[in-house]
Amino acid sequence: MSYKNFLADDVEKLDKLNRVQLINSIVGYKSVNLVGTIDQNKRTNLAVVSSVCHLGSNPPLISMIIRPATVPRHTFSNILESKYYTLNQVTVDMVEQAHQTSARYPKDVSEFDATGLTPIFRDGFVAPFVAESPLQLGMSLNEVHHLECNGTEMIIGSVHSISVKEGALGEDGFVDLNKLNAVCASGVDAYYKPELIKRLAYAKPK
Amino acid sequence: MSYKNFLADDVEKLDKLNRVQLINSIVGYKSVNLVGTIDQNKRTNLAVVSSVCHLGSNPPLISMIIRPATVPRHTFSNILESKYYTLNQVTVDMVEQAHQTSARYPKDVSEFDATGLTPIFRDGFVAPFVAESPLQLGMSLNEVHHLECNGTEMIIGSVHSISVKEGALGEDGFVDLNKLNAVCASGVDAYYKPELIKRLAYAKPK
Repeated sequence: MSYKNFLADDVEKLDKLNRVQLINSIVGYKSVNLVGTIDQNKRTNLAVVSSVCHLGSNPPLISMIIRPATVPRHTFSNILESKYYTLNQVTVDMVEQAHQTSARYPKDVSEFDATGLTPIFRDGFVAPFVAESPLQLGMSLNEVHHLECNGTEMIIGSVHSISVKEGALGEDGFVDLNKLNAVCASGVDAYYKPELIKRLAYAKPK
Repeated sequence: MSYKNFLADDVEKLDKLNRVQLINSIVGYKSVNLVGTIDQNKRTNLAVVSSVCHLGSNPPLISMIIRPATVPRHTFSNILESKYYTLNQVTVDMVEQAHQTSARYPKDVSEFDATGLTPIFRDGFVAPFVAESPLQLGMSLNEVHHLECNGTEMIIGSVHSISVKEGALGEDGFVDLNKLNAVCASGVDAYYKPELIKRLAYAKPK
């Protein structure tokens, strides 16, 4: 194989947009979730995130990275204020609307209104779910880690509730994201529909 | 839409394997990377991880979660020891071998030998790259965060080098993972080949 090589110095010399595309795409494919929050004046907010990560199953914990200096700053302050948020899986049909939530709307504009996605409230949970999403998680704030290296914030949440569209949940607990028509992303602007290659057995030394 | 609903109590009552499958799959699709490390006795180690996350592009920083109590414990101790590691994108052709690295091999067995993947060393960088991978990152350790909530470790690394197969790098800096035949994963055992839906323009308020 023939490779194109960059050292750290070469990356530093790239113009900003090139560097952003390069570094965002080298990590591999990313999940796409919409974070639903609400402030103390009952104003809703919705932001697309591609940094959601499974931390552990017992207890069920999920992390995400928020960059306070950029778009989802209302998301961060709302989570600190209310202690609750939702994660809503993005499907093929929702890609344009999800991407549009990354526009810099003023605080008095809800991304729900701006994009036409529908907030729903369930069982007294304070943060809004996205009605169009077939996989909706209610999350409660657990830990926040300030990452000194670049000033981002890592938010760790506990899974408070899971709502998954009928028919996608297997007998073994596996949620079939293919059946939900969920997407993944790469870089900052590319969206994909994954096709199953195979499921493999639990690995043991041969 | 009709939903199947779980509250935290319902999740807690699931048997272990069901809970692991459920919580691993609700976060969405995940990247698949092989982490290459080496110990002070020059023994190499290779571990598959699905928790790699872009933290920022300037400076270029990437995080991953390591669970010291489970399989990649050698990975964690090797990174702390040598301060360097590699991230190697997994392709369709490498899925079985990558998955097999998650088996619990004893410390004196290198997962390179056990799976038939090929370690290569480049430009004096101490950690081994995976020769079969078309996207190889040299990483230097930056920060470690111990996550109190479940005892996992978050490793933050700086991008030291990038080697990407010729032909996959766009003029805008975007690395086309499709051209590399890269995969994504869901749950603990399902692997997928994503198909591009579209790339979208930078979002602005309408």
